[in-house]
Amino acid sequence: MSTESFVDVLIIGAGPAGVMCATALASAGVKVRVIDKRDTRLGTGQADCTEPRTTEVLHSYGLSDRLLRESVQLHMAAFYSPGEQGGIKCTDRKPDMAPTARFPFKLALNQAAVEAIFLDSMKANGLEVDLSIAPTSITFDEAKLSDPTAHAVKVTLQHLETSPTPGRKETVNAKFVLGADGAHSWVRKALGITMDGDQTEHIWGAVDLVPDTDFPDIRNRSTIHSVNGSIMIIPRENNMVRLYVQLSNQDVVDPSTGRVDKNRMTPDKLMAVAQQSFLPYVLKDAKDINWWTVYIIGQRVASKFSAHERVFIAGDACHTHSPKAGQGMNASINDSHNLAWKLVHVIRGWADLSLLKSYEFERQKYAQDLINFDKTHSELFSAKPKTKSFEDGVSHEDIVKAFKTFQGFASGVGIQYSESAWIDAKHQSCAPNLIIGQRMLPQVFIRASDFCPYDIQDYLLSDARFKVLVFAGNINDKAQLAKVHKLAEELEKPTSFLRKYLKDGQNVESKFGVVTITAKTEGLVNSLGLPALFRPHWTKVLTDDKDVAQATGGGAYDRFGIAQDKATLVIVRPDGFVGTIAPASRFEDVNKYFAGFMRA
Amino acid sequence: MSTESFVDVLIIGAGPAGVMCATALASAGVKVRVIDKRDTRLGTGQADCTEPRTTEVLHSYGLSDRLLRESVQLHMAAFYSPGEQGGIKCTDRKPDMAPTARFPFKLALNQAAVEAIFLDSMKANGLEVDLSIAPTSITFDEAKLSDPTAHAVKVTLQHLETSPTPGRKETVNAKFVLGADGAHSWVRKALGITMDGDQTEHIWGAVDLVPDTDFPDIRNRSTIHSVNGSIMIIPRENNMVRLYVQLSNQDVVDPSTGRVDKNRMTPDKLMAVAQQSFLPYVLKDAKDINWWTVYIIGQRVASKFSAHERVFIAGDACHTHSPKAGQGMNASINDSHNLAWKLVHVIRGWADLSLLKSYEFERQKYAQDLINFDKTHSELFSAKPKTKSFEDGVSHEDIVKAFKTFQGFASGVGIQYSESAWIDAKHQSCAPNLIIGQRMLPQVFIRASDFCPYDIQDYLLSDARFKVLVFAGNINDKAQLAKVHKLAEELEKPTSFLRKYLKDGQNVESKFGVVTITAKTEGLVNSLGLPALFRPHWTKVLTDDKDVAQATGGGAYDRFGIAQDKATLVIVRPDGFVGTIAPASRFEDVNKYFAGFMRA
Repeated sequence: MSTESFVDVLIIGAGPAGVMCATALASAGVKVRVIDKRDTRLGTGQADCTEPRTTEVLHSYGLSDRLLRESVQLHMAAFYSPGEQGGIKCTDRKPDMAPTARFPFKLALNQAAVEAIFLDSMKANGLEVDLSIAPTSITFDEAKLSDPTAHAVKVTLQHLETSPTPGRKETVNAKFVLGADGAHSWVRKALGITMDGDQTEHIWGAVDLVPDTDFPDIRNRSTIHSVNGSIMIIPRENNMVRLYVQLSNQDVVDPSTGRVDKNRMTPDKLMAVAQQSFLPYVLKDAKDINWWTVYIIGQRVASKFSAHERVFIAGDACHTHSPKAGQGMNASINDSHNLAWKLVHVIRGWADLSLLKSYEFERQKYAQDLINFDKTHSELFSAKPKTKSFEDGVSHEDIVKAFKTFQGFASGVGIQYSESAWIDAKHQSCAPNLIIGQRMLPQVFIRASDFCPYDIQDYLLSDARFKVLVFAGNINDKAQLAKVHKLAEELEKPTSFLRKYLKDGQNVESKFGVVTITAKTEGLVNSLGLPALFRPHWTKVLTDDKDVAQATGGGAYDRFGIAQDKATLVIVRPDGFVGTIAPASRFEDVNKYFAGFMRA
Repeated sequence: MSTESFVDVLIIGAGPAGVMCATALASAGVKVRVIDKRDTRLGTGQADCTEPRTTEVLHSYGLSDRLLRESVQLHMAAFYSPGEQGGIKCTDRKPDMAPTARFPFKLALNQAAVEAIFLDSMKANGLEVDLSIAPTSITFDEAKLSDPTAHAVKVTLQHLETSPTPGRKETVNAKFVLGADGAHSWVRKALGITMDGDQTEHIWGAVDLVPDTDFPDIRNRSTIHSVNGSIMIIPRENNMVRLYVQLSNQDVVDPSTGRVDKNRMTPDKLMAVAQQSFLPYVLKDAKDINWWTVYIIGQRVASKFSAHERVFIAGDACHTHSPKAGQGMNASINDSHNLAWKLVHVIRGWADLSLLKSYEFERQKYAQDLINFDKTHSELFSAKPKTKSFEDGVSHEDIVKAFKTFQGFASGVGIQYSESAWIDAKHQSCAPNLIIGQRMLPQVFIRASDFCPYDIQDYLLSDARFKVLVFAGNINDKAQLAKVHKLAEELEKPTSFLRKYLKDGQNVESKFGVVTITAKTEGLVNSLGLPALFRPHWTKVLTDDKDVAQATGGGAYDRFGIAQDKATLVIVRPDGFVGTIAPASRFEDVNKYFAGFMRA
């Protein structure tokens, strides 16, 4: 058996970041190997919630149906504060939804079940995880670093005792490597990347149980801020809820070492602490504790996210934070979602190696925002509540204010990448409400030919292609249609981005997905009047109108701020983020945008 | 190998009626055998459309997700009539939706793909179709007919030449037999059941193709009524459309026999006829004709639908009609859906044999309505259009009027079963807009505990249990809550239908699905204040309110006409039809309803 092999991408670690990247690469036909030092798949896992943007991301890979089927939806957030008679009282309930989200609710489902969705998708593309294998060294071939087609990274692997081939050693030559190997990442350490940040003083316990209680909001995401300590309730599948329970140092810290010692805590003790905070509501002892843990929060971000644009780290390997904000699995999945299409472009020879610099640029900034969010969030929930005897405490208003402020960030739908070679906001004024650097807003349009309603996100699947949305205005108006034809003529020229990157005879649709969106018109939209370039298939012309039931769709031009009497190009990146926007008169700026990273 | 076997139900024929029945019975754990004389599964099949009610039915078996994923939605109907300059012009477009439908559109998907959904569901329950087997005789054991547990029917089977065991004979002893063996049903003939009705004079061709045309509504369900003949367009999957093309006798009738002879027609000739009717629009010659046929319409209903309540016929075996109304597969699926739960009840010993009489009672009446609908429909579309030179022709207004009149029936959502032992409309006035004898209206409610929106149909799955909907009013009002507790006390008595049919220790939920629907209240609904009987699980209390996004739900008490200051029982049959309704004060009428067919 050969002890040396060659792959496009070696992924180390099969947690959420690893399997998301593997799913994306395998579906794009990239040659991938995935290893994990664990000897079995995860049983349950720490992570519990999928945020709205993550659901959109899974949708873009065709994986949201199963996620929605298996998970529990969280629609309402409830807030409890100290009452006048001691104990707690409900101070408020607020819809737990991000305003622009297509799936405007969190989905509770254990990490193992979410990973299984990815693993099955990988399997459908012939890819499985090799378990019980650990990396032992990683080296770069300096001479090859500038050649994107070269296998410039060499990783040696050791088959562990629990593998079918214990003791075996092998060498993998990879073009690229992803370290998705968790908070104690071997890859990160091997690259000498440091984690910057602090350990907090806040200690929490977490416990999964089927609750027996008269607490009215036990099936809502509830925040209990009591004088006995704080609790967060996350409902989940199989009638369970997860309780995050604030602990004090003396509960779990070993005074001799100053470190958290899980042995000082038991599920019963954890329940006893929770029961105090639930008063006057009764939380009965749980018959069956499915899972529990104790943790102290470390809030850190890696100093680098890549080495030579050849080895990358993602997920917990590059950021650690509190689980209560429900971001861990989401941050991991979105790290890989950001990276995967860039790897595909470089491996296919579509883009320069420089495109891979955007991963660290975009995701390190995100990770820092995440830590700042988590700090504010954790401080609020760990702080003493405001009462008559403690006027300086955190009030209900403080919590609701933070809840609202962070809703866009926490849900993921408000995440914004800064201007760069890959995010060009020069013509933002063409569509002031369609923010360049944010993900394309979900919006229902009606298919011009058959009046079927579709969300634009259904046309923005993660297939590694840039999408070109042509907002064509009212094409039943002759003058407007002429403008659209003029634009098509320009984009048919060999210098245009739609032609420049194609080989002879190659179809535009092999690299780009063109969709035309017309304004609402009287009568049927004259799709056949559009230039052929803008209607590659009869399904690719949409109209900004309501569906026949008048239930959904319409108003997008106004909502986005796009003029109906101009033609406007909206370029959406393969990860669903708006890359740039330009009016027809400035189509050359779109050529420049692509010239910044695409290879002719 | 034994040549004699015993099954609960033998199903003869694996078309839509057969596999629907097999799916329902297999999911209920009934011992089923399915045979078909064909030697392979269907390639494409004649049937093309699933009507809105059929989609609801598939949903109730957990099968609608796949149907929706694989099919094409038809939202708009377009109408073309003779124009002033010769040729046709668009006279109207109308939403092609049934007002109360949960899925308010037709779904186009070929019959083989629809059957595959059922076949895979059967397979998951360990049931497959035995191909290349035909029945040769059927006999009844008269002495056993009154014993529901007896195998009272003997069917001999012959393994055909194409089977793995050609020439083999066997005997199947069945409690019940379903003849789902098509228009030329062997079962029907063996039972001596006649088909009553006529052959029409209307001759049509049908052809599937990927169209190349400038006809604007080629992706909508279009009715073309031209002086050159009528056409109906049904868009379908894989970019195809089906054209139904009106033919004249001389096109296809053999003058020597007076019978339709398919050999007199070719796809090219069919296209030539269609091209004339499309003018002034150009329908180009098709490169690839996927499927085509020619037919003359017979409109007939079987004189009986069962023999001794032991052998039943369903689908084309008991009604034949024009395919253009898009009802064939739908009628077949709904025949079996009506029958299956009744078989389950009798086989489990839950109900008397008499329950099976309701199959013919309900479905024969439906079939007659279907023929009447089809006659009107076919006459209209086969008649000459009204023009200046032919004032007596059918006008656009005639067609639209018929379209509207029959929308409820054609979509299936307006189907009404008459009063009987199984449909008791005595207290219709308690909920005047929730029609007893029609399927329960879809309606979104909010789950009281966690604010998740659910359609009531999600609580009415086809699991063979009657559903008991307790409309409990505003239970945060003490007086109202007292009424609800009073009702629960009555229903806890041993004489109550909820207790009377249970064995010792058996749970109410094993035979009935109880769901409580409260009126909207200020603040959280006090679910825990409800009697335990009315909240068997925390998920089973719903509220008549909008979801947190204010996008769906609410207003059901008003819509149905149910009083908020009374308690009202709505009994939904296992097939989703409202069986009876009663006010709390007349709960004894519900006891009487069940006593009419249930076995204590």
